[in-house]
Amino acid sequence: MTGVQQFVDNNLERFISELTELLKIPSISTLPENTGDIVKCADFVVERLREAGLNNITVYPTKRHPVVYAEWLELKDAPTVLIYGHYDVQPVDPVELWSTPPFEPVIKDGKIYARGATDDKGQMYMHIKSVETLLKTTGTLPVNVKFLIEGEEEIGSPNLEEFLTQKKEMLKADAVLVSDTALFETGLPTITYGLRGLAYMQVDVEGPNRDLHSGTYGGAVPNPINLLAEMIAKLHDENGKVTIPGFYDDVVQLTQAERDNFKKLNFNLDRYKESIGINDIYGEAGYTTIERAGARPTLDCNGIWGGFAGSGAKTVIPSKAGAKISMRLVPNQDHKKIAELFTKYIYEIAPPALKVTVQDLHGGPAAMVPIDNPVIKAASNAMSKAFGKDTVYTREGGSIPIIASFQRILEAPAVLMGLGLNTENLHSPNEHFDLGNFRLGILCSAYFLQEFGKK
Amino acid sequence: MTGVQQFVDNNLERFISELTELLKIPSISTLPENTGDIVKCADFVVERLREAGLNNITVYPTKRHPVVYAEWLELKDAPTVLIYGHYDVQPVDPVELWSTPPFEPVIKDGKIYARGATDDKGQMYMHIKSVETLLKTTGTLPVNVKFLIEGEEEIGSPNLEEFLTQKKEMLKADAVLVSDTALFETGLPTITYGLRGLAYMQVDVEGPNRDLHSGTYGGAVPNPINLLAEMIAKLHDENGKVTIPGFYDDVVQLTQAERDNFKKLNFNLDRYKESIGINDIYGEAGYTTIERAGARPTLDCNGIWGGFAGSGAKTVIPSKAGAKISMRLVPNQDHKKIAELFTKYIYEIAPPALKVTVQDLHGGPAAMVPIDNPVIKAASNAMSKAFGKDTVYTREGGSIPIIASFQRILEAPAVLMGLGLNTENLHSPNEHFDLGNFRLGILCSAYFLQEFGKK
Repeated sequence: MTGVQQFVDNNLERFISELTELLKIPSISTLPENTGDIVKCADFVVERLREAGLNNITVYPTKRHPVVYAEWLELKDAPTVLIYGHYDVQPVDPVELWSTPPFEPVIKDGKIYARGATDDKGQMYMHIKSVETLLKTTGTLPVNVKFLIEGEEEIGSPNLEEFLTQKKEMLKADAVLVSDTALFETGLPTITYGLRGLAYMQVDVEGPNRDLHSGTYGGAVPNPINLLAEMIAKLHDENGKVTIPGFYDDVVQLTQAERDNFKKLNFNLDRYKESIGINDIYGEAGYTTIERAGARPTLDCNGIWGGFAGSGAKTVIPSKAGAKISMRLVPNQDHKKIAELFTKYIYEIAPPALKVTVQDLHGGPAAMVPIDNPVIKAASNAMSKAFGKDTVYTREGGSIPIIASFQRILEAPAVLMGLGLNTENLHSPNEHFDLGNFRLGILCSAYFLQEFGKK
Repeated sequence: MTGVQQFVDNNLERFISELTELLKIPSISTLPENTGDIVKCADFVVERLREAGLNNITVYPTKRHPVVYAEWLELKDAPTVLIYGHYDVQPVDPVELWSTPPFEPVIKDGKIYARGATDDKGQMYMHIKSVETLLKTTGTLPVNVKFLIEGEEEIGSPNLEEFLTQKKEMLKADAVLVSDTALFETGLPTITYGLRGLAYMQVDVEGPNRDLHSGTYGGAVPNPINLLAEMIAKLHDENGKVTIPGFYDDVVQLTQAERDNFKKLNFNLDRYKESIGINDIYGEAGYTTIERAGARPTLDCNGIWGGFAGSGAKTVIPSKAGAKISMRLVPNQDHKKIAELFTKYIYEIAPPALKVTVQDLHGGPAAMVPIDNPVIKAASNAMSKAFGKDTVYTREGGSIPIIASFQRILEAPAVLMGLGLNTENLHSPNEHFDLGNFRLGILCSAYFLQEFGKK
């Protein structure tokens, strides 16, 4: 039993109560009314970094939500690791589906329930505790460390790229460590070597200039809901392929090696269906569920609205309708180009009787790091040590736009050492985080810094 | 100038202030929270009927909203006219689009603005005032009169048919007079000889058992919004025809005489498009706008919902989505049969991966009265006298389910003497009623009773 492990186990209760306080702050980045909570949350992170023993802790304002920076650079000629995470969270609606209030953390069966528990407050906090653990048990760190904790990840990190560019020197590092992904399954140490990109759009349509009586006008005027539905239906063909011209042009096809590796994960389809309560899977023909969810581009409606949605019946033809539509992207699709292709196609298929506007709400590129990269190796060894089991490799469907920026701007490879689980309801009611994985994550983080320091 | 006309003009100001009070009552029949206002509104109608000189005024409870009855039966061997109207109104959302609050009536440019102004409080009240006028100027009425004012028209009159059946003797009449339709255009006296029926449905779909992260699951699971959109798109073909098998089987086709008569109305398409702010019309191939809106069956979405509709972006695949879909029907389509065909077809085209439920929210049959019916003639003469212009004949797209029931149960022909205008925003924000037509409507009603009494 390492001193690190001992310290973690002796202090775990305190670590968890600190995390509980962090989870009480409703730092929802997309809602203007929560701006004050965002600031409060950034300050909370600052205090914990200070207690952990970090230096030069600074809150950098951006056009919207602040970035928290901290460092420990006491070693000459040692590599530097930049640890990235985010303290902002998703909205909580539909709030009525939460068993307990999203910002009143509750611990049940070794899991902590709250918005942001697994995405990403719980995972981000593991690294602050691993640094505290190393400093308090060894009086030093095996490598130099920098922390970059942002507040805009859930809205696509609109200002972080500019921050990276401006602070390139300050943020310089040999590797970027991120925990914002998931284990392939409980107990199985997993490195995610690929992430999907995102293009998130909004389509608004208008027919008549006001709501109309569906009896008087029904059948004679353009109905924005019916026509929007027809446009959405045109976005996929009968094989589940996206019909936007050029959508697949830049897609890096899956290699046979990758497809074979995915098969090794012995993915359990029945358990998958059961875990989300679906009768049947659905998606692009010719690909497995793992491939569809992690390594293929896709298009999904995230929201739709128009007309009367109350109880009872209102015989109206609405003036307006709209939808939020996002596309998950893979290397080498360019999210800006995809957004343009989407916009062009929507205007192309829009009926002339309809007034249509398309907005590009946000986007980010996909990312991949070769499995043989030394950073990945160090992380793999660290996880294997903490879990006592061989580490596996996978690709994840979610987007962390900033990962690609790290590689492009800081020229540092990023390693995704996620301790979450896809069953932990991230972005959904009753989000939670396994506290056993919280503990293992602290060990993984500490061991990684030691492994990476060996070079 | 008739005594009737003189009395109306001398008392018009009072009539309008009484109507204003009636319009202040938010008698929305579909919203449970307004049940108290419905009762209040029924009582208000009772008081006005009493003041007008009616007898045996009674409020009959139903399973939901009460029916107000009143009568004046002093004449032996004279025909009896049953006057029907409704005191309930549509919901007001989107309330933010109202220039003035929907239940704080305002008079601008000779029009009174309020929810229910033209549909149907204003038109219903014309008849109460015409009876008051005749009684106070002549001390009698030219025919026996019965009033039947209901509170459930906007939710499809679910209990009125049972009431008609139970009170068949009490309601016995030689003609039914209704003002709940529109003039073809300002200043043009119009009799509506046909109405469309209605089948109003709700479709709810469920994919995953909870909202999911669109990154982690996007492309691999059934998205309820995309799939609902595809189902809605399947409900029309490329010619704007409804694709539900059997939908058109019982449709009485338009006669050449009717199509010629419609042409006589010299409908102005540019003015029509301008009045509702559309670039282009839309509808079933092979029919004119008048035919599409009044004499052809149609299908329209009245509402749709699902996922995230707030500001910003939420990367979610929602668990549920739904839509309200209504069909306007023509003779001899049976609304119950159409509802069944719709339900059957929806289940047929529903993807197996989706849990789908269909509800029949309400419906009513279409109706027609032959133009050569003596009741129609009397109404035509009355309107021509009030307007000083020949009366025209048209069919309207709206539904008054009860009209067909009157003809079936009471075996009495119904005449639709509407004084509204289709530009008066019925069912929409800023509903209003032209007070000039309110005055003419009182005269039309009084002259009709006189004309009908001549037999």
